[in-house]
Amino acid sequence: MDAAEFLAQKAAATERALNDYMAGWTEAPPGLTEAIRYSLFAGGKRLRPALALGACELVCGVDTPALPAACALEMIHTYSLIHDDLPCMDDDDLRRGRPSCHKAFGEAMAVLAGDALLTMAFDAAAQSGKIAIIQELARGAGVAGMVGGQAIDMDSSLRAIELPHLRSMHAAKTGALIRASVRCGAILGGATTVQLGAVTEFAVHAGLAFQITDDILDVTGDKGSLGKKTGADAARNKSTYPALLGVEESRRLAGEAAGAAIDALAPFGGAADAFRAVARYTVERDR
Amino acid sequence: MDAAEFLAQKAAATERALNDYMAGWTEAPPGLTEAIRYSLFAGGKRLRPALALGACELVCGVDTPALPAACALEMIHTYSLIHDDLPCMDDDDLRRGRPSCHKAFGEAMAVLAGDALLTMAFDAAAQSGKIAIIQELARGAGVAGMVGGQAIDMDSSLRAIELPHLRSMHAAKTGALIRASVRCGAILGGATTVQLGAVTEFAVHAGLAFQITDDILDVTGDKGSLGKKTGADAARNKSTYPALLGVEESRRLAGEAAGAAIDALAPFGGAADAFRAVARYTVERDR
Repeated sequence: MDAAEFLAQKAAATERALNDYMAGWTEAPPGLTEAIRYSLFAGGKRLRPALALGACELVCGVDTPALPAACALEMIHTYSLIHDDLPCMDDDDLRRGRPSCHKAFGEAMAVLAGDALLTMAFDAAAQSGKIAIIQELARGAGVAGMVGGQAIDMDSSLRAIELPHLRSMHAAKTGALIRASVRCGAILGGATTVQLGAVTEFAVHAGLAFQITDDILDVTGDKGSLGKKTGADAARNKSTYPALLGVEESRRLAGEAAGAAIDALAPFGGAADAFRAVARYTVERDR
Repeated sequence: MDAAEFLAQKAAATERALNDYMAGWTEAPPGLTEAIRYSLFAGGKRLRPALALGACELVCGVDTPALPAACALEMIHTYSLIHDDLPCMDDDDLRRGRPSCHKAFGEAMAVLAGDALLTMAFDAAAQSGKIAIIQELARGAGVAGMVGGQAIDMDSSLRAIELPHLRSMHAAKTGALIRASVRCGAILGGATTVQLGAVTEFAVHAGLAFQITDDILDVTGDKGSLGKKTGADAARNKSTYPALLGVEESRRLAGEAAGAAIDALAPFGGAADAFRAVARYTVERDR
């Protein structure tokens, strides 16, 4: 199976599960639900749910036990995009080729839609019945994870930073939730300690490859494919891999990280071919 | 025990638990932790934690099993205040007598501090080991609860609304988290179905009394005691109990709700005296 087919299949399963889950929101104000659906069903790659579902399938043969975590991960990712786009944060008017949430619904509603997605992500995750999943998600998205990385990024965006600092900022800002994605899936599939260790190692390297590639695409990418502004990092004077190391050296590092991700999958043999394809996809994609 | 003594005792226990919990945040960026601590330790009443701890004590004799929920509830409440104060929301410069979070740390950091508190609340709650607690919190704070009520409030703030609408808006915006507070405490204390029903009934009425009194204090209160602007609801043309019914009729309704809250405690006999005092306090307080 190639990465595109794998991602498309897992995205479809995630979207069905998200729709089923939100069908239970009968008491939510329609305006709030509309703003949430606008951002949640905007054609995202669904990478994090795919990693959760794929990790579950890898350890137990089916992906359905990971659906509550898959929904929660995409809700958390979507909330982070809505809040990141706010005028007081990155001030982006465009997201996935459409007006960002606050441009379409106003700033106050965008704040609330993000808050609601983050809150309900834990309700969705609770359907797994496992406290370990709540902890993985909260820590991946929390002060030592995604939000923490965002705070570091904000602090350092106006001055040049060194490579070790950049690496640890990215490990928190995007790496921690990607790591939580595979761990949630593996835990819900009943992974052994060795299996959990192997997928965690895979995720750490794949997450790094993904982030370096994001930085490169911001420099070299096509606005039409990306659905958002390019050159935004440079315009904000943000430290990125290409800014620190140049595009060629960044590409080499991303390729090295993707290779390390693939190496980590050795214990699974052929069953991990989809994840190997995903590791290659993280560096070869154009959006 | 009078309400002030009860609240002070539970506030002290909550603050110790919050400090212990946050001592584990060794990997959080210092700037983010500072903004969070500024808002979390700002002399709040700690009403929601007190309700959780009190409900736990009421059903099992000790309050310690409810400490993870108490921390989570105060973190959720604090996040909601930080985001409510943002310029795009209520635009309040003052909170508990000090500059609000975004005035002290900037808007971006205030958004992130709120996001971090909401996220980590679920990590704190997970320390209870009970998925039912995660569900109570997510639903109390979610689209059919606090955030949903906030979205309704925003929608209706520019036009007059009717009493049934106002009541259901408040039931979501403040009532749902107060309801979740006592339910979490009772569940963690091992409540029977009858006990859980009784404390839930208490919380619904006490929450209404609390909110009506908040509305009244916004009209009649003293800025010094409240630590925030008064007359803010009227200035924003918000529908409130005093605006719809006048101050006297609002006081009568609040008293009636406090009475119903006290009636709901009958099954507990003298053990519920602290909660009876809290019900009276909700309508007699000056802040």
